[in-house]
Amino acid sequence: MILKCIVINYSYISLGNISSVYTDRVLVHVKDLTEEKVGQVVWLRSRVHTSRAKGKQCFLVLRQQQFNVQGLVAVGDHVSKQMVKFAANINKESIVDVQGIVQKVDQKIESCSQQDVELHIERIYVISTAEPRLPLQLDDAVRPETGEEEGRATVNQDTRLDNRVIDLRTTTSQAIFRLQSGVCQLFRETLINKGFTEIQTPKIISAASEGGANVFTVSYFKTSAYLAQSPQLYKQMCICADFDKVFCIGPVFRAEDSNTHRHLTEFVGLDIEMAFNYHYHEVVTQITDTLVQIFKGLRDRYQTEIQTVGKQFPSEPFKFLEPTLILEYPEGVAMLKEAGVEMGDEEDLSTPNEKLLGRLVKEKYDTDFYVLDKYPLAVRPFYTMPDPHTKYSNSYDMFMRGEEILSGAQRIHDPQLLTDRALHLVTNGYKCVIISCLISSFQFLGLERVTMLYLGLHNVRQTSMFPRDPKRLTP
Amino acid sequence: MILKCIVINYSYISLGNISSVYTDRVLVHVKDLTEEKVGQVVWLRSRVHTSRAKGKQCFLVLRQQQFNVQGLVAVGDHVSKQMVKFAANINKESIVDVQGIVQKVDQKIESCSQQDVELHIERIYVISTAEPRLPLQLDDAVRPETGEEEGRATVNQDTRLDNRVIDLRTTTSQAIFRLQSGVCQLFRETLINKGFTEIQTPKIISAASEGGANVFTVSYFKTSAYLAQSPQLYKQMCICADFDKVFCIGPVFRAEDSNTHRHLTEFVGLDIEMAFNYHYHEVVTQITDTLVQIFKGLRDRYQTEIQTVGKQFPSEPFKFLEPTLILEYPEGVAMLKEAGVEMGDEEDLSTPNEKLLGRLVKEKYDTDFYVLDKYPLAVRPFYTMPDPHTKYSNSYDMFMRGEEILSGAQRIHDPQLLTDRALHLVTNGYKCVIISCLISSFQFLGLERVTMLYLGLHNVRQTSMFPRDPKRLTP
Repeated sequence: MILKCIVINYSYISLGNISSVYTDRVLVHVKDLTEEKVGQVVWLRSRVHTSRAKGKQCFLVLRQQQFNVQGLVAVGDHVSKQMVKFAANINKESIVDVQGIVQKVDQKIESCSQQDVELHIERIYVISTAEPRLPLQLDDAVRPETGEEEGRATVNQDTRLDNRVIDLRTTTSQAIFRLQSGVCQLFRETLINKGFTEIQTPKIISAASEGGANVFTVSYFKTSAYLAQSPQLYKQMCICADFDKVFCIGPVFRAEDSNTHRHLTEFVGLDIEMAFNYHYHEVVTQITDTLVQIFKGLRDRYQTEIQTVGKQFPSEPFKFLEPTLILEYPEGVAMLKEAGVEMGDEEDLSTPNEKLLGRLVKEKYDTDFYVLDKYPLAVRPFYTMPDPHTKYSNSYDMFMRGEEILSGAQRIHDPQLLTDRALHLVTNGYKCVIISCLISSFQFLGLERVTMLYLGLHNVRQTSMFPRDPKRLTP
Repeated sequence: MILKCIVINYSYISLGNISSVYTDRVLVHVKDLTEEKVGQVVWLRSRVHTSRAKGKQCFLVLRQQQFNVQGLVAVGDHVSKQMVKFAANINKESIVDVQGIVQKVDQKIESCSQQDVELHIERIYVISTAEPRLPLQLDDAVRPETGEEEGRATVNQDTRLDNRVIDLRTTTSQAIFRLQSGVCQLFRETLINKGFTEIQTPKIISAASEGGANVFTVSYFKTSAYLAQSPQLYKQMCICADFDKVFCIGPVFRAEDSNTHRHLTEFVGLDIEMAFNYHYHEVVTQITDTLVQIFKGLRDRYQTEIQTVGKQFPSEPFKFLEPTLILEYPEGVAMLKEAGVEMGDEEDLSTPNEKLLGRLVKEKYDTDFYVLDKYPLAVRPFYTMPDPHTKYSNSYDMFMRGEEILSGAQRIHDPQLLTDRALHLVTNGYKCVIISCLISSFQFLGLERVTMLYLGLHNVRQTSMFPRDPKRLTP
């Protein structure tokens, strides 16, 4: 006797009873659908990126993270006319489980990441239906604003951020934030190899750290507290407590009412602190070497992500030298003067002059990353160590594509010298640090900014998943 | 002609002119002073841990982080009587540069980490003088509270925390926080190998995340905001945005007026979120495996630190099984009942009962780490997925040495089912998450707690560098 078995090849299914059985069905990843799989029957779970019906066929683009593949539902042995109609009516962004045969295609599918194969679908189940109208279209959200497609729909920043869960699904967003995860990993990997210890510093503090300006106040039981503007004091306490070399990655808070492309009220600080033995350049070398390791790691491990972002936001590949270029301040000023800028020798650099110097350095030395060393003592904080021989100081800034990413200085450790420089001596914490060890203090200016500048993007909101600024607290 | 050259072998020196010259003097590390170095002349920079003069000799214990070595200044060819006196008068905790010859000793020096050698000092320069009276003595701060030395001076928690910079210099503190750095590193290493992406979530949020209780309020320009009690919502948004597997390490804030050994108002959360395909046990396995990798890594890479902490705070080595023991709730209740506890089958576990169950599990299975699965639906939040067949639920807690470190559950993803379970549906953010994917949500209960329990310590303030509780906001 033959039992006739009815299999339903398409449906909306409820996963209400999920976790009730174990299954041995193996789901493949879209990124693994390559020519080697031709002829195989596979299952995959993905989003319906687009669908387009055409007579007895329906083309679906199936997307998983940065990858997508063309699926074909065509009337035939396994597929009824109803099933084609069913497939054509699935809302974009719904999640489906499909079974299909991997087939080679004659002509490369330019619109998909998997260009050499397509999937001939035999079964399709919708396991989660998306709303029929989306607040933004993913194709619009990845369209370059210049070039061939100029003039076609794009999505503005606020619409993106208001609907971040959808905007983060674009190939560009997926690539940006995977690369950003890589920045953190490379930073830590390098420092741990150099013998650094990772520390955790408190974000709620009892006194405003930098003179009380731009600090957020927190209600703390019956009193008030503040949100830390930097882990500076705590990092220094660790050095003073013999940790020797420490780093931390964590949020820092600035209550600045700045609405620019590069300011956030909350950002992620990448911080290092170390004692040095004889010369603050020991520290400069450690930092530049760490950054170079990050740049190399990104170039070698995240090329796909860099290319993906470049499709929407074209930029020159990030260039750097080994060893890193260290330019002395007077040389920088001379270059600017030669380019027609009028400025005094001990004058600070304006933001446009920093940008310009970045371009001049790029032309002359072919690098997007350099150190400007020996700032004039007059433009740095009172605790900065003077250069022993000149009117300059043992302090420096580092730049990526002409924007400052880090500001550092050797701190005065001698209480007498410090008192000479500033009669108002600070807290006990500071005092303790000052008398104890040789410290070169500095702070990176943010993971978001480093990621933005590395990729040549133009707004720090593109590299913060859920940015906070004076006007945005959501999502 | 012979030039007579006068070398000063000891002095207080000013480092005011540091960074003016480069030097090729190589400083060795105390930990590297072993028998292989016998006969060599070395330079090192260290703290004076103790000094003890005795006739024409002065013994100095020189300390660097967890390591120390005995130094001897004895009248002889290179050393004058004045120099011995000079050495004997150096304040403890001062930083010195010394030059000396490494010598083998006949009898092991029990009080030092470097037991087989001592340093015969020929030159000594004080580069930073400590205050003559310290607020706590390092030897007191590492003394075990029980055992042979019972009754001798120790240092209480508040004195330690008030003078954290000194307390952190003890061998115990150095070991605790180096091991804690390792917990973070192992957590990330394991997850990155499993294909997870690290994310950064905002700490300033617009709405109190868990119903508004125990939340800190922040003044945010002209409005108010809150400090995030968990990254839960943001992690889920990332899953909904197709990141698939994410983790984050960052501060979480609880405005709870709890003054216990295990509560802090700010702690570091280790968080994971992932989509699963068919069964929430896919997630349970990933978490237990991650923890097992951490336990193994600590055991294999941090044995020195574990031993060091054990000298002051003796505890049994942390035990775990592979694969991890997963106990079902009814079995746990049965074990408790057998041990004489009176409780209902669907009753939640009290903290003492959790502790007791931990001991019973240790006796029966010889493990300090296990999962308690299938909690009664009645004791879990409304969004917890019911078990399809019983009155239990798809939820679990994980325990280390009988204390909960993680609480997890499969979330209901079906809006209808959720509405049935709770008529008050939450924010848009939640809704978006619920309809989109299968999520197993959970949160680790803190890096500090994991470190404390692993090492068998008894107060979370020992594993937080700068703890915050309702009564402490400093240092």
